[in-house]
Amino acid sequence: MSDWDDVTSLRRRGETGVFDADLHPGWAIVGKPNGGYTLAILARAACEVVEAAHPLAISAHYLRAPSPGPVEVHAEAIRRGRRVSTARAALWEDGKPCIEALVTCGDLVADPVIEWDAIPAPPMPPPEECPAGSNPHFHVELFDHAELRVDPATAPFPQASGEPAVRFWFRLRDGTEPDVRTLLLAADAGPPTVFNLEKYGWAPTVELTVLVRGIPAPGWLLVATEAQFVSGGWFDEQAFVWDSTGRLVAQARQLALIGT
Amino acid sequence: MSDWDDVTSLRRRGETGVFDADLHPGWAIVGKPNGGYTLAILARAACEVVEAAHPLAISAHYLRAPSPGPVEVHAEAIRRGRRVSTARAALWEDGKPCIEALVTCGDLVADPVIEWDAIPAPPMPPPEECPAGSNPHFHVELFDHAELRVDPATAPFPQASGEPAVRFWFRLRDGTEPDVRTLLLAADAGPPTVFNLEKYGWAPTVELTVLVRGIPAPGWLLVATEAQFVSGGWFDEQAFVWDSTGRLVAQARQLALIGT
Repeated sequence: MSDWDDVTSLRRRGETGVFDADLHPGWAIVGKPNGGYTLAILARAACEVVEAAHPLAISAHYLRAPSPGPVEVHAEAIRRGRRVSTARAALWEDGKPCIEALVTCGDLVADPVIEWDAIPAPPMPPPEECPAGSNPHFHVELFDHAELRVDPATAPFPQASGEPAVRFWFRLRDGTEPDVRTLLLAADAGPPTVFNLEKYGWAPTVELTVLVRGIPAPGWLLVATEAQFVSGGWFDEQAFVWDSTGRLVAQARQLALIGT
Repeated sequence: MSDWDDVTSLRRRGETGVFDADLHPGWAIVGKPNGGYTLAILARAACEVVEAAHPLAISAHYLRAPSPGPVEVHAEAIRRGRRVSTARAALWEDGKPCIEALVTCGDLVADPVIEWDAIPAPPMPPPEECPAGSNPHFHVELFDHAELRVDPATAPFPQASGEPAVRFWFRLRDGTEPDVRTLLLAADAGPPTVFNLEKYGWAPTVELTVLVRGIPAPGWLLVATEAQFVSGGWFDEQAFVWDSTGRLVAQARQLALIGT
């Protein structure tokens, strides 16, 4: 079992919708488990209760940040269909709900016909010319397990670029190739784009939706993140993920609060 | 009471989370209530149970298309916070859930400082130079209540443009000015963008998330919709809504199936 498989594993209580999981301290940002990591756990439980292969659309509302350690996932099928099925999934810790999600699942085909593509992968320097993602002020535990190589033109350190966008290569350090669940992690793994506006505070995600558009090929993932509108203490951040063949495999957008 | 207020009104059963509502046949697309219309009803119930003024992030998963007539809305607060609160809201008809949503609510301020804006309103001919939205093959009931004026360069009729994007002016025909709930309707009111790829079938929404970014000023709303990636029978469609002052007030994205 790979590290990634291990830290997203679930133990189901019989045939119920209750699963036990452990949030690993190594997949966190300064002590708090990464939002994409917890999303991968929720998606896994959802797919299991509806007996589908892949999450297709995952909408999560973050209620309170969980800490590393044992958690419960409560998942329930709310509709089973021929083509898609939908489940509710919630992550609980210490008797309180931390994340509540709706997940529509189905089976992605391996090599679908692309009929329209308006978002080709942006030009990027190769991974070996991109410095490793890091934060000079804090140790980011996640980066011990996920390797980020950030386009220097978009890196918020050592100096904010002035534009809230970050592009990076992404792969797991355990050597396993990306699967659909990896995309959920990759979409939320980058530094907050508003760091590039010199807003360096903790930027809590309020809502995050990921649409999975394809099964990734082996190799590096490319992720482009961007805030489009920063106003009244709020920002959105979208993320696009392409696989090593240049195929779009995920689209995401979150609403987050600017840290203070 | 305006038409719009009337058709989105709720009757709460005492202090419970159960509301009765009526889906009006006039706010439908060929017999099926519009997805943005039903979203406005769900958001209203959610805000009521958490006692907040505005929906900020609404994620809805569409399980089965409801018909006009009496429905129940089941809403439940799942977290109450100082700044934001989150509720679950579901629309039931004939004993079955039709739409399940998570809604994070709060209070938008009237005139927030904009710190970054990467999506200015696109250039548009004035409303009087844009033909009314209509479908030559079907009567769209919604257009009797919502006035759409479609940029001729993007209109799917009489001829598909070849590019899956539609831009239109939007206002309510009852003469009421837009409020935050109107944005949810506007974001999903246009023709499916894939009509412009000559895919004219019924295109069911599977998931729709709307982020409300501001309180709209009086006057026309401007809506720009676009599919970015059409693949394997699926398409995404994003929608941006600006108010009459050119301020961005909503961002939305949905995942939908291509009609056959």
